[in-house]
Amino acid sequence: MVYVGKRRADHSVAQTEINQRLLDYALTGRRVARLKGGDPFIFGRGGEEIELLANHQVPFQVVPGITAASGCASYSGIPLTHRDHAQSVRFVTGQLQDGTVNLPWEQLVAPDQTVVIYMGLNGLPIISENLVRNGLQPDTPAALIEQGTTFNQKVYVSTVRELPELVKEASIKPPTLMIIGSVVNLHTSLNWFHPDSPEH
Amino acid sequence: MVYVGKRRADHSVAQTEINQRLLDYALTGRRVARLKGGDPFIFGRGGEEIELLANHQVPFQVVPGITAASGCASYSGIPLTHRDHAQSVRFVTGQLQDGTVNLPWEQLVAPDQTVVIYMGLNGLPIISENLVRNGLQPDTPAALIEQGTTFNQKVYVSTVRELPELVKEASIKPPTLMIIGSVVNLHTSLNWFHPDSPEH
Repeated sequence: MVYVGKRRADHSVAQTEINQRLLDYALTGRRVARLKGGDPFIFGRGGEEIELLANHQVPFQVVPGITAASGCASYSGIPLTHRDHAQSVRFVTGQLQDGTVNLPWEQLVAPDQTVVIYMGLNGLPIISENLVRNGLQPDTPAALIEQGTTFNQKVYVSTVRELPELVKEASIKPPTLMIIGSVVNLHTSLNWFHPDSPEH
Repeated sequence: MVYVGKRRADHSVAQTEINQRLLDYALTGRRVARLKGGDPFIFGRGGEEIELLANHQVPFQVVPGITAASGCASYSGIPLTHRDHAQSVRFVTGQLQDGTVNLPWEQLVAPDQTVVIYMGLNGLPIISENLVRNGLQPDTPAALIEQGTTFNQKVYVSTVRELPELVKEASIKPPTLMIIGSVVNLHTSLNWFHPDSPEH
C-alpha cells in the first residue's frame, strides 16, 4: 500500500511521479492496483496514467467508478437530468489556476442544462460572478454538497448569486461538488439521506 | 421479479405505469427494489420515479450507478476528460422525438469539450449533419460504441462526418453510445479490452 492521494495545493505525490511509479512497480513484475475515488476517466487523470503504461507495452485494465456527480446527485436527491428541467448535463472543473478560474462561461449559462462543477469551492465567488455577468439568471438554483455521500454530508441550497455568501459563513471542508440548474429545486422534495438523524 | 425494461419504440411498460407500480407495491407494505442499468439520475428517469413516492410519503433510497458514459469510456479506452484534450464533458440524449433530434447544436461544437450522446444511433445522420453545419470540424474524431462493456462490445472510430456511413454498413445493434472530441484519438493507444481475443 502506497499512498499517493491528493489534497488541494498539497499533492503528496505529483501526477507525473504517480504515473512513473505505476510503471516502475509494473516493470518489477508486480500486479499493481491503482485505487482512486470517483471515475478514473472523469477528472481522474486516468488517461495520463495509462498512457505511460501503454507507451511501455505494460498491459492494464480500467474499471469505471461512480463519479462524484453521480454519487452526490443520488445522496442529495438532485437528479442531474429530468424531463421537466434538464435534457443535458455538463461536468466542468472549477479548480483555480494561477488564482483564477477559466471556464467557457457563455456555454454554461445556456438553458435546460444542469452544470456540475467539480472542485469549485475556492473559485466559488469567481464562478458565481462570471455566470451572472454572462447572463445566467442570478436566482438560478445552486447547491453545494460538502463531503457528499459520507455521513458528514451537508447540502447547501441557494441561488447562483447568494451561494458564495452562504458558504462563506459555513466554513466548508472539501471535497465539494456544485450543482447549478433548476433540478436543484427537486432537493426539497427528494432529499432522502439524513446522516444527522438518529436512524443512521 | 417484474420486468419493466425498455427498448426503443417498444417500451414494455410506460414510464408513468412504472412510477405507479413502484408506489402500489410499496403501499402494500413490500420493500421494493427498482433495478436499472446505468445511473438513475443521468437519463435514467429516477427523479420521476421517486417524485411520486415522495408525494405519497413513501420512504426511499437512491443508489448511484455507473452511467453508460463512464462504462463505455473505460472499456473503449477513451478518457472523457484529459488535460491535453478536454477540460469538460457534456452528456446529451440523441433520442429521436417526432422523427427529428432537438439538440443545442451551437453549444455542442465548442472546443476543448467532450460530447457524449446517449441513444443516438437512429438520429446519427441528423446529429452528424447538424454538428458540421453549426461549425464543428468535419474531421473531429467520433466513436460509436456498440453494446459497450459487454463481450459483444464493438468500437467504431471515425470522424463526425464519416461515422454515419461507417455505421450504416455495420448493422449496429443498440444500446450504443457516441463520444465526440479529440479524446477519441486516444482509443488507438489506450484500447485494452478485446472481447474477441482468445484470452477472454
